[in-house]
Amino acid sequence: MPIPRGDGAGTHKSFDFGHQKIQEDIADSDYKMACSNKDLCRKEPTCPPKCAYVSNPYLETMKEDVLYHFDLGTKTHDLPAMFGDVKFICVGGSSSRMKTFSQYMNELLGLGRATDDIPNICAQTDRYSMYKVGPVLAVSHGMGIPSISIMLHELFKLLYHAKCTDVVAFRIGTSGGIGLKPGTVVISKVSVDPSFHPHFEQNVMGKITAYCTELNAHLSQELLNCSKENNEFDTIIGTTLCTSDFYEGQARLDGAFCNYTHEDKMKYLQRAYDTGVRNIEMESSVFAAMCKRSGLPGAVVCVTLLDRLQGDQIDNSHEVLAEYQERPQKLVGCYIKKVFCKI
Amino acid sequence: MPIPRGDGAGTHKSFDFGHQKIQEDIADSDYKMACSNKDLCRKEPTCPPKCAYVSNPYLETMKEDVLYHFDLGTKTHDLPAMFGDVKFICVGGSSSRMKTFSQYMNELLGLGRATDDIPNICAQTDRYSMYKVGPVLAVSHGMGIPSISIMLHELFKLLYHAKCTDVVAFRIGTSGGIGLKPGTVVISKVSVDPSFHPHFEQNVMGKITAYCTELNAHLSQELLNCSKENNEFDTIIGTTLCTSDFYEGQARLDGAFCNYTHEDKMKYLQRAYDTGVRNIEMESSVFAAMCKRSGLPGAVVCVTLLDRLQGDQIDNSHEVLAEYQERPQKLVGCYIKKVFCKI
Repeated sequence: MPIPRGDGAGTHKSFDFGHQKIQEDIADSDYKMACSNKDLCRKEPTCPPKCAYVSNPYLETMKEDVLYHFDLGTKTHDLPAMFGDVKFICVGGSSSRMKTFSQYMNELLGLGRATDDIPNICAQTDRYSMYKVGPVLAVSHGMGIPSISIMLHELFKLLYHAKCTDVVAFRIGTSGGIGLKPGTVVISKVSVDPSFHPHFEQNVMGKITAYCTELNAHLSQELLNCSKENNEFDTIIGTTLCTSDFYEGQARLDGAFCNYTHEDKMKYLQRAYDTGVRNIEMESSVFAAMCKRSGLPGAVVCVTLLDRLQGDQIDNSHEVLAEYQERPQKLVGCYIKKVFCKI
Repeated sequence: MPIPRGDGAGTHKSFDFGHQKIQEDIADSDYKMACSNKDLCRKEPTCPPKCAYVSNPYLETMKEDVLYHFDLGTKTHDLPAMFGDVKFICVGGSSSRMKTFSQYMNELLGLGRATDDIPNICAQTDRYSMYKVGPVLAVSHGMGIPSISIMLHELFKLLYHAKCTDVVAFRIGTSGGIGLKPGTVVISKVSVDPSFHPHFEQNVMGKITAYCTELNAHLSQELLNCSKENNEFDTIIGTTLCTSDFYEGQARLDGAFCNYTHEDKMKYLQRAYDTGVRNIEMESSVFAAMCKRSGLPGAVVCVTLLDRLQGDQIDNSHEVLAEYQERPQKLVGCYIKKVFCKI
């Protein structure tokens, strides 16, 4: 079947492979929860997406919106022409990995070759990198909740300004596993905080608000199905622990500081395992919370680089780690290709 | 006066310009607070720095330490030969800015020209960038507390493995000002959280510990003196607010989400100003806390890109912003040059 190129704004038909189901899933609950300004917000999925993906009445009053960390803006760039056809946003920590992913998708969707040099749309800044191939927008987010949070604010505003519709979001990344063979891929059911609560706490002007951190169940299941079809590596759906530190915050014994013992660490990791945690990373909670607030179906797909019950150091060869890091890309790529073929 | 090259391990004499005073200042209070393992820790500044800059008894038991996010390790690299002469660590968010800073220091210290291509020591990874010129090590840290925290853990371990002594740490960055003319440089006296508490709260295995976030007063005063001598731009010592989000976390009205009003924002910023806050950024609290824990005298020097009482968007030209961003570099450069000339 010929695969249509997705290089024009608004040229895509609605998805019929699961995608529509996913949009409907979130329409009734998540989306209505998300928007604080009911007048500006579409109330049903069929309404014009007047404030799609954002929930901020002040945006409509601004003459210009500078997306500072992308070095893009509504006056300097024709965002609908550049991004109007985006249907899949794929984010990951590393800039080079997002470039590789965009090259991989380029070939997988029949839009070009994996060796093509995809230009970095944000080349004027070194905060984030952004690559676009057809309906796929790949953006790096650095490490940690604050870094991905800045990026997602500007990415959701970009989708809004570009008048995008029916977008799905993926985070593809790396993580530490708990009780899993290294290389296993974990699709996050929910992201929990260091006390294993399924929420993301945000401090705004000194006031704490907790947001739900469940990921889209239907999308996660579709990704698991892709894994079963590929049958190349182990993939599970599990709970993901999201921390704000890589060393002490993940009970490692190899940081610059360590005020606890090996026994303390093992007890904590065992407790995490017993509550369903299968991997640990540093961005999933705010990704899940912001996707829910914006009405975007979201999935988190991370490969485990080591089993934390066995150690703390990531000392595999570059080759092994590089192959592991391709695994989340393959799952998400498989899903996108399926949907793209049906557009 | 000829400026000696600082390119060999352990070739530097002790500093006599303030530097020694700064080391003594911290020796009695901060350092003893920092180390949880008194047996492994030097108790006085003259003792062998057996666990200098780190406080983790497990490090001595490791056969190899892989500094994963730097792509460096104790087995694969001769860290004492590479870094033993480091006396100044300068960290900043942007990778390209740290390269520019290293080139600037290269010329300022008479070690080469500002157009020399200083190699990125961490070129094999895109997590952080690292540049060394003589005794100055410039490292990027990305955005947000978790990102700089990972980097500092590995940087302090690097100093420990390289057997560095008498090191001073600077963060040079950008920020939003409160009630200041854009372009004003703020040297942080202390970093406060969104509720204006002068501490950094860290969650380790579900338990919260609060660490002091005062910066080194003597070092801050020396930097202010440099500013007075240069007399090129306004510089003040003030309190810095450190947040975990750029948009809602800083009460901006231009994020993807906004559940509060312009009046709420102005009240919060005014309250911040009344408690002494003069700028807002996203890394100072953990930088201050970790410097104190490691016994490193530390300073935070950030230029303000806008006055948040006047607006939220950073819409100055690239040229204006580039000139602003040189200002913290000039102050820190001035201080380092003074100390370096006396070595």
